[in-house]
This record gives sequence, C-alpha cells and structure tokens, in this order.
Amino acid sequence: MKTVTGFASATIGNVACGFDVLGFAIKEPGDEVILTLHEESSSESPVSIKTIHGDGGALPRDPKKNTSSFVVLKFLEYLRNHKGIDFQGHIDLELKKNLPLSSGMGSSAASAAAALIAANELLGGPCTKMELVHFAIEGERVACGSAHADNAAPAMLGNFILIRSYNPLDLITIPPPDQLYCTLAHPHIELRTAYARSVLPRSISLKTATEQWGNVGALISGLLTSDYELIGRALVDVIAEPKRATLIPGFYQVKEAALGAGALGCSIAGSGPSIFAFSSSAATAEKAGTAMRNAFLDIDEHLEADIWVSPVCREGARIL
Amino acid sequence: MKTVTGFASATIGNVACGFDVLGFAIKEPGDEVILTLHEESSSESPVSIKTIHGDGGALPRDPKKNTSSFVVLKFLEYLRNHKGIDFQGHIDLELKKNLPLSSGMGSSAASAAAALIAANELLGGPCTKMELVHFAIEGERVACGSAHADNAAPAMLGNFILIRSYNPLDLITIPPPDQLYCTLAHPHIELRTAYARSVLPRSISLKTATEQWGNVGALISGLLTSDYELIGRALVDVIAEPKRATLIPGFYQVKEAALGAGALGCSIAGSGPSIFAFSSSAATAEKAGTAMRNAFLDIDEHLEADIWVSPVCREGARIL
Repeated sequence: MKTVTGFASATIGNVACGFDVLGFAIKEPGDEVILTLHEESSSESPVSIKTIHGDGGALPRDPKKNTSSFVVLKFLEYLRNHKGIDFQGHIDLELKKNLPLSSGMGSSAASAAAALIAANELLGGPCTKMELVHFAIEGERVACGSAHADNAAPAMLGNFILIRSYNPLDLITIPPPDQLYCTLAHPHIELRTAYARSVLPRSISLKTATEQWGNVGALISGLLTSDYELIGRALVDVIAEPKRATLIPGFYQVKEAALGAGALGCSIAGSGPSIFAFSSSAATAEKAGTAMRNAFLDIDEHLEADIWVSPVCREGARIL
Repeated sequence: MKTVTGFASATIGNVACGFDVLGFAIKEPGDEVILTLHEESSSESPVSIKTIHGDGGALPRDPKKNTSSFVVLKFLEYLRNHKGIDFQGHIDLELKKNLPLSSGMGSSAASAAAALIAANELLGGPCTKMELVHFAIEGERVACGSAHADNAAPAMLGNFILIRSYNPLDLITIPPPDQLYCTLAHPHIELRTAYARSVLPRSISLKTATEQWGNVGALISGLLTSDYELIGRALVDVIAEPKRATLIPGFYQVKEAALGAGALGCSIAGSGPSIFAFSSSAATAEKAGTAMRNAFLDIDEHLEADIWVSPVCREGARIL
C-alpha cells in the first residue's frame, strides 16, 4: 500500500482577450487528490472513489463520470496502450475539493491535474507533465462538455499557457512578469460553463475579431517584456465579456472598483462568475481585492465574495 | 533653397495570422522622396509634385491626391494647428518610385513615410516618428481607401509593429530575432488592395477567429523569444489566405516550394500578389527565393518574379 497526494491550483482561463487560447495558474487555493495504491486488483474499475470532501455531494461518485477518477482511468489506458505498462492493482481516490464548483476558477481542471500528478508519481513517473496534460484536457470534456485546455494546461504546467493549436496540441509557456499579481473575486453564485458558452455568438464580424487579436498579441508582448501598462491596455475582451457580463450581477461595478483601486485591468475569470484583476504590486492587488469585495456587497443582490491575492504560479501541479 | 532625401522601404502587412494588426519592414527595396524647400510661397498648394520616376505615369500628380504629397500637406496642417508653426514657403517633391504598385509590398506606405521623414527634416524636426506615423496612416486612406497601419507604421518605425488599437492608436514595437530573414517574391501582376479586401468575409465563426488569435499570440511569442520553430508553426492564416490565394496564380505551389527549401513559413505579403517566407538563415532564405521564383515560372501562367532577401529592418524611414 502506497499513498501519494497531488495538488493543483485554481486557474483563470481566457484572460480577457485570449478566449479559449490563454490561461494561467495562481498559487492558491487548489484541490488535493490522495491516491492509495493496492497491489491486489479489484473486480470492478481499477480506480474507485473513496471520499470527496467539500463538494456538498454535487460531484458524481461513478469513477467513469467523476473528472478526477476519469482522467486516472485514461492515464492507465494510455500506459497500457503506449508504454506497455499493464496496471493490475487498484487505486483508491480521495478528493479534497477546495475550489468552488462552476466558479470560473478551473475547479474541474485542478481536480484532474492533482489526480494525474499523483497517479503518475504512484506508478513511478512514466509520463512527463506534457503527456499528462492530454488526459487533463480529456477530463474537461467530462466536466464541462468541451475539451478546452485553457484551465487544464496551466493547472498542470503552471505559468501562462497559450494554446496555439488543439490539433496537434501546441502549448506555449509564457512565464509571468515578476511583479504581476492576480486578485480573484469569487461571488457566491454558480454559473455553469455550458450555459456561459451558450450566450456567446457563433460568428463575429471580421472587424471585431481583428480588434480581439490585436489585443491578444499585445497581451503576450506585455507579459514577455514585463510591460505592465501594456498588459493593462491589452486586457480587453470585445467578444465574450459583453455577453457574459449580463450573467454576473455587478460585473461592471466590480471591474470599475478594481480599476479605481489601481489594478491594471480586470475581466471575467474563465466563463465566470469569478472576476480577476491584475496589478503590478501585491499591495495594489490587495487594495483591488477589498474594493471588489465591497462592490459585490454594494449591489442590490448584496453578494458575498471570497477574495484571493496571488502571484502567477510557475510550478503547476505538484506532489505534496 | 534646401534639399533633403527621405527613404523608406518595403513592408509586409498581415504576416499570415496578424491580419490588419501586424507588419514589418525589410531593408530594401524602398522609395526615395526628394524635397526641395523654397522660401517664397506659391499661390497654389504649398506642396507640388515636380517629378515621379518609375510609376509609368500611374500615380496622380495632383498634390491632394498623391499619397506622398498628401501626407506632407497633412503634416503642414498639423504643424499649423498643433505646433504653432505656420509654414509660408513652398515644397517641391520628387518621387523615385522603386516599389511596384499594387504589389502587397507597402508601396504607398513607403512613399508616405519617405516624404514625411524628409519633410520633418526639412523643417528642423518638429515631430517624432511616432507623430509622423499618424500622417502616414492617413495617406493609406488616399492610396487604398482604408487607413490601415500595418504597412505605414513599420515603414516609419522599422521592426515588427503590432497595432493593438486604432482608436486611440497604440503601436507596439516587436524587435526581430537576429537570424530571421525574409524572402519576398513579387510576381509581375498587380492586385489592388481594395479588390483583395472585397473577397474577404465580413463575418467569421468564433471557432475560426479563436484559431487565428491563438496563432497571433504564438507568433508574437516566437518573435520575442527568438523561437524560430514556433514562428514557423504560427505562420498560419485561416481567414484571408484561403480567400486571397485564389487571386494569386500559383500561390500554393510557391508556398510549397518555399517550405520545401527549408523556410519556416510562408504566406501572402499584405493583400498580395507578393508572397513572403521567413527563414532562420540568409542561406536558407536565398534557397527559398530561388525555389519560389522557379515555382512561379513553372505554373501555366509562367510568371516572372522579382526576389529579395533581407533581414527585418530595425531603423525604419531615414534621411539619405
């Protein structure tokens, strides 16, 4: 019997202009997955879910339907088919779900990445993180209905990850500027990714698209040259934000509050309802957090919000 | 009487994925504009066109309609309205048009930038290059019907220039990797920008747009980190190239030839018909040039093509 604990943190997809192609990891909060290896095989699935803490019973317990166990099954299948490793034992999975569900914080990706890094360690490290990313992305299909990578890839690899292409998968690591701090505000409401995707247009004007990719290029340039002002100017989303803002009570007030406190820019975290802001110092990021929390409280709905301030996580998923 | 000669080189707009937001300058060929200042004013326009060489009589001689004189008029107007400089003399303009018209090589932008750098020098340098860019962009409206900046900005400033936003104008300079060489093939046909724009779709699917901006981000990353392989992978245009390729006889054969010779990537220069390729050495860029020239000759139309091989120009418009 051997036990390993994997950890992967919250991630923020889209990053304003980078819809479906950009995401980054923060240092905390994150999910923990504890895997226990039993040498004897089980008559049922090679992976079973022992316990899930913190989900209020919302997540499926069927190993094929729960993201964290599903990705471990995919990993074992890959080992059998491509590495000649035929796993005969049994793995018990315990999930400490610290990330809120349907929050825009990459909750499912964190569980998947934590499970995968643990499973890989448990079996002696047969795969690289870049291989593991593929299974984490598959997990998103189970969790959200689409195999997008903008949470799964940074949850596993850390940093900013730019997805140049899905087929073949081409991930580019963009290291964060040293003084870049993220403020994340999570209001106590849920917004399902599938619903937040349904409000998006299927087609956009070429003019609007051009505006968006000018900002994508500028954001990547700002990140790589540590040009904080440019990062702020490039945090513009003319496509998803205007549509999804209507699904988040107080979005514009919270954004205004973050900018008023000195943040460089502010937009929706993933598909929402969480909202992130970037600042060029920890102190400003803290100030932005207080302002964002107060702005959520001040709207008619008086929403409570959790606030986290963190630099970008460079490490990605890790063993605890 | 005082005479100044300005020079600005060919530029390549779009750069595959960067439709309307990215362009770069090469070292040569370029246009020369010779301005002569006369202290006495003219009863007509303060700028008149004395001679144009090399355009076969195609360009307008009316100073308000010719791009190179038009931008000088705009520059003088700006000096009067914003710098308190009321120019009372007269400027004669001579244009040595070395760039072919309607070639996708930024011919009008080169004339405009050369004229502006000369006019600014002639009047004692009242403006920065960044100020002059605005007039060069206005010149594009006269020449091509739309005030795009992806030729005008690099013609003036050199390097790669990313246009984050037009309103307000936000230009980001991306210095080129040291070993990046451009091969430019100009087949002896003309393709008017306005026509090449008319074949583009007015709207595109969100999925296609996402693919394009993934490549824009990746190209900027490749340029800033001198990752030549990434530059090659990111030189993908899923929007304009498929439409405009049909307007350029042999486009796919020429592209194939460039890649076969070892080029990193290849696409349409601006709105065509010229085709550019990037290579990571001068020798490969030369090989690609030979292959591209031969490919144009091999098609049914047996097109002759001029070939230039050049690093990216860092200097931009200059006084000769």
